[in-house]
Amino acid sequence: MKSVGVNGYGTIGKRVADAVSCQDDMKIVGVTKRTPDFEAQMAVQNGYPLYISAPEREGLFEEAGISVKGTINDLHDMVDIMVDCTPEGIGAQNMEVYKEKGIKGIFQGGEKQEAIGHSFNSFTNFKDAWGADYVRVVSCNTTGLCRTLKPIDDLCGIKKVRAVMVRRGADPGQVKKGPINAIVPNPPTVPSHHGPDVQTVMYDLNIITMALLVPTTLMHQHNLMVELESVPSIDEVIDTLEATPRVMLFEANRGAGSTAEIMEYAREMGRPRSDLFEIAVWKESINVDEGELFYMQAIHQESDVVPENVDCIRAMLEMEEDPDKSITKTNKAMGIVG
Amino acid sequence: MKSVGVNGYGTIGKRVADAVSCQDDMKIVGVTKRTPDFEAQMAVQNGYPLYISAPEREGLFEEAGISVKGTINDLHDMVDIMVDCTPEGIGAQNMEVYKEKGIKGIFQGGEKQEAIGHSFNSFTNFKDAWGADYVRVVSCNTTGLCRTLKPIDDLCGIKKVRAVMVRRGADPGQVKKGPINAIVPNPPTVPSHHGPDVQTVMYDLNIITMALLVPTTLMHQHNLMVELESVPSIDEVIDTLEATPRVMLFEANRGAGSTAEIMEYAREMGRPRSDLFEIAVWKESINVDEGELFYMQAIHQESDVVPENVDCIRAMLEMEEDPDKSITKTNKAMGIVG
Repeated sequence: MKSVGVNGYGTIGKRVADAVSCQDDMKIVGVTKRTPDFEAQMAVQNGYPLYISAPEREGLFEEAGISVKGTINDLHDMVDIMVDCTPEGIGAQNMEVYKEKGIKGIFQGGEKQEAIGHSFNSFTNFKDAWGADYVRVVSCNTTGLCRTLKPIDDLCGIKKVRAVMVRRGADPGQVKKGPINAIVPNPPTVPSHHGPDVQTVMYDLNIITMALLVPTTLMHQHNLMVELESVPSIDEVIDTLEATPRVMLFEANRGAGSTAEIMEYAREMGRPRSDLFEIAVWKESINVDEGELFYMQAIHQESDVVPENVDCIRAMLEMEEDPDKSITKTNKAMGIVG
Repeated sequence: MKSVGVNGYGTIGKRVADAVSCQDDMKIVGVTKRTPDFEAQMAVQNGYPLYISAPEREGLFEEAGISVKGTINDLHDMVDIMVDCTPEGIGAQNMEVYKEKGIKGIFQGGEKQEAIGHSFNSFTNFKDAWGADYVRVVSCNTTGLCRTLKPIDDLCGIKKVRAVMVRRGADPGQVKKGPINAIVPNPPTVPSHHGPDVQTVMYDLNIITMALLVPTTLMHQHNLMVELESVPSIDEVIDTLEATPRVMLFEANRGAGSTAEIMEYAREMGRPRSDLFEIAVWKESINVDEGELFYMQAIHQESDVVPENVDCIRAMLEMEEDPDKSITKTNKAMGIVG
């Protein structure tokens, strides 16, 4: 039973804590918070030992009546690995501390590849993280691209990918971000960073991406145009994606014609936080034209990377050599389809 | 001086009426309304002779205190051409009436190509509408694609176009349409109708499109990926688009990084209704990679087709043989850039 810490019990951190807790080969020994907000309170209510990530702020937690087990320095001594879910850029700073303390660290997609040195996706390069000390799980969008592009590449070989990423402007709980009524090229330059980010885990893929922000909070949406080495039938692609773990096909004509309806479906699944860990592909959108595959998919930005974090722990702590076995084990424990 | 009627003084109709009124070779002899709403009142206030498009509804106009000149049957006898701006699908029904009455008709992009028989864009096929009786001005999105693809095709030849169209969910005044918080593949199938629609005016273009709806009211946004016969420099593309009438380049790093900021710019231009008749191309988005041109553009869905309607009148009534002269004349009268 490996001991896992979560540094930053926020959007990703709280989900990773829950996902680790339902595995039988690892456990959460502590989570950290910097601010005594309702998430800190709920970490305690949920039975997670809570540690303060900024020791000098202990007074704030006392004032808020939230009892803590200690500071992050105490937690450092207890973990086999720390899953760092702190905001973008903080993880890279924390890595220096983990190095000093001699503990392994997993970082999220907000950190730069160059800062961490190695990136991870369960399906594309699990084995390359074997025994590694510091690994970055790629972002929600990159994870979404890998989940469907890898099986397609295996099926018929990819010559070139073009993708337009229509991104949610903010998460549901973020009230200070926009846009409210605009489409924002983000970046306004081409290519966006998503293509190179995919290449950190699918090393030889030829991919170019464009990205924008739109006024929605529910999911990202991707439009894929994939030139292929050999041309499959539409049914072969459907069968392949249906057989791929962590991918679900949805039908617009069965009431799942938008990101809102897909998340409504997820709410009916009864999972914590109504999460959809799977990548949602619109079945009707799958088409092959002039040797090129087209499809549309949606990504639940708050949750899709969570099972990848669990698999990454197994690879880095040398707990399971076979990626498929780890994926299956993680999925079964989390109730993930496929 | 040619006599023009506008059937349907709504989003497009009221703008066409104003655009025709500022030309020196045509005039509005009447506009129609079906409902005595504020637009009907404003048509009268703006000095347009108002006719009832559904004669049986005359009582409603009397009740509302809106005085009319007569019914659409009276207007039919007065026009050289009717610009039909009625809702999608109604135009095709009206065409039968125009045929009976022996008057020419222009229709909007909501009508099906098969129903009208011929489509129009000022830059791509002006001359093909010469003397024609019934012509459809292509939709706002198709007009937007033509405005930039035609000069690029002239510059270096287009092998294939891929475009992802991120469409506004509703116009600013439409309160009953969604989505409020979702991304909607629309259609959820690939290709969307936009590619074939471009081919009704750029007959030989190889183009495939994907389309979605997002929660915004301001503009459509297009992501273009254009494989080329010969490869230009980025500066050549910029120079070409800067020299193209009815196209404007915007810079994200000068404060025009979104559709909202572009429409804010348009408001500063002081035009009626703060319209932006020009297609807005983000300058920074223009890039060439592996012989392929990438760029992003935005389309003011309520107004970009308006100057095309004016040019179409000139072609159908054989008023000006040279498309460039008509475009320049229309632009000058409307204060359009370029």
